[in-house]
Amino acid sequence: MAFDRLIERIATLQNPTVAGLDPKLDYIPSYIKEEAFAKYGKNLEGAAAAILEFNKGLIDALCEIVPAVKPQCAYYEMYGWQGVKTLHDTIAYASEKGMFVITDGKRNDIGTTMEAYAAAHLGTVLVEDELCVPFGGDALTVNGYLGSDGIKPLLSICKAEDKGIFVLVKTSNPSSGELQNRVLDDQKTLYATMGALCEQWGEELPGKYGYSGVGAVVGATYPEQLRELRSALPHTFFLVPGYGAQGGGAKDVAPAFDANGRGAIVNASRSILCAWQKQHAPEHDYAKAAAAEAVRMRDEIVGEIGTIK
Amino acid sequence: MAFDRLIERIATLQNPTVAGLDPKLDYIPSYIKEEAFAKYGKNLEGAAAAILEFNKGLIDALCEIVPAVKPQCAYYEMYGWQGVKTLHDTIAYASEKGMFVITDGKRNDIGTTMEAYAAAHLGTVLVEDELCVPFGGDALTVNGYLGSDGIKPLLSICKAEDKGIFVLVKTSNPSSGELQNRVLDDQKTLYATMGALCEQWGEELPGKYGYSGVGAVVGATYPEQLRELRSALPHTFFLVPGYGAQGGGAKDVAPAFDANGRGAIVNASRSILCAWQKQHAPEHDYAKAAAAEAVRMRDEIVGEIGTIK
Repeated sequence: MAFDRLIERIATLQNPTVAGLDPKLDYIPSYIKEEAFAKYGKNLEGAAAAILEFNKGLIDALCEIVPAVKPQCAYYEMYGWQGVKTLHDTIAYASEKGMFVITDGKRNDIGTTMEAYAAAHLGTVLVEDELCVPFGGDALTVNGYLGSDGIKPLLSICKAEDKGIFVLVKTSNPSSGELQNRVLDDQKTLYATMGALCEQWGEELPGKYGYSGVGAVVGATYPEQLRELRSALPHTFFLVPGYGAQGGGAKDVAPAFDANGRGAIVNASRSILCAWQKQHAPEHDYAKAAAAEAVRMRDEIVGEIGTIK
Repeated sequence: MAFDRLIERIATLQNPTVAGLDPKLDYIPSYIKEEAFAKYGKNLEGAAAAILEFNKGLIDALCEIVPAVKPQCAYYEMYGWQGVKTLHDTIAYASEKGMFVITDGKRNDIGTTMEAYAAAHLGTVLVEDELCVPFGGDALTVNGYLGSDGIKPLLSICKAEDKGIFVLVKTSNPSSGELQNRVLDDQKTLYATMGALCEQWGEELPGKYGYSGVGAVVGATYPEQLRELRSALPHTFFLVPGYGAQGGGAKDVAPAFDANGRGAIVNASRSILCAWQKQHAPEHDYAKAAAAEAVRMRDEIVGEIGTIK
């Protein structure tokens, strides 16, 4: 099961974090942008080329420190189909370097259309008799508002292709409680209900470390809910955004982990991508600065949770 | 406001329907596929080229009959970045032909990332000093599970760029009730609560026909909820999927409209795309068959709701 691979890679590197690849042009050193614009022009193609170059440098620097990357689709779509090509090339490059790739698309739709998203991001597609891989990530974030028949088409592809999903349960943003914290007719919150569905959907994808192929997104900015959900959802692996720039610290994310130091992966995006700016490092050292921040974050979290079994 | 434009085009054509462009290779005549595969190979590029050719033929045949198209992102992502380029080219072609384009992406994320999606699908992006248009649709479907700060970044772009959004309220799939029909602590259902948020978000984008720039997706497969929501949400324009292949008929969608025949647009995808197969028409007549089905659907719905003011 896909999350077994992730859990093993986390243990090997003793690092339960994922680097969010949410590139904006502002984060990219000017020598990379200038080269890309000189070659392709100041347009979507030039921007996409600069982002790919930036990402490759980060992946080279991070692949032996951090087990996974999480490219956020929005920041690639923002640069048009040219940006989406860079998403594809980034996924391929990170996979080649042995990283686990979580495509952060928060996709959702009804059954037949969800099958198309599943094929796009986790599976394959048949063009006549040729089998093609559209994007090739290892896991996809999804939104469960449409209910079970929006999720089930993913499960069969996850089973067949050894992939996983993360369902939005309790998101890290300030207004996440507006709907997610509402109490339903059985006195459970909406987020707890979505969490319980993750446990149920996950029964189809059991993993050897007790965590299924259906994970949950639970924000670092709500440590109380993180603790509640860790205890309520023993088979659900957590993707924890909101660490760093959004305000969550190591103490906040600690409740996401079980007694073996397993059960979660913590994301940081801006703090890693912009480390060179924050550290006032020379721009050619952007990847080195990112790696230093990744090490700092790893040590801070492992210092809190202890050795990962 | 973007939906004013849509409402006017609906009235001009006396047609409150939208053609869903959800292309699968199976729906495409073999002469189109053979030409594309001969030119680009049996691969994602060949598939994407075939889909674009198919879509252009449909748009040519439909643009004076149907006011809008709704390309579903999943069916383009399924063919990789090459498919996403076809999404871009389809949007551009439909816009050139005067059609209103609803990009069906059901996007959702936290504030800063939602800004990137808004720029991608409804706005522009700055590459140094050059302003670029990534995808250029007129409206985007979105998922509100993350609450207000996942929606608000869209509103400012909608205001600045004359665009609109459709928020998922009550979806057309069989299990949509699993979460959406749950009753919250104030005795309102989750879908009614999401609907009420649409009214509230829409206050920032008032339109001259009474409908704001924040619409709602409400499935034709639940006519009772359609009636309830039409009455509860007087300023919210509805996008109604589920007509045709999913089982909804003209009588089912009628409650989505107000007394002036306004307030909603009904989507059909497969019944239009596959009309040539269903009618056993020669494959070169696929676009003619689609137009005939679009006229049949228009007449059926207008027959039910009367003249559109």
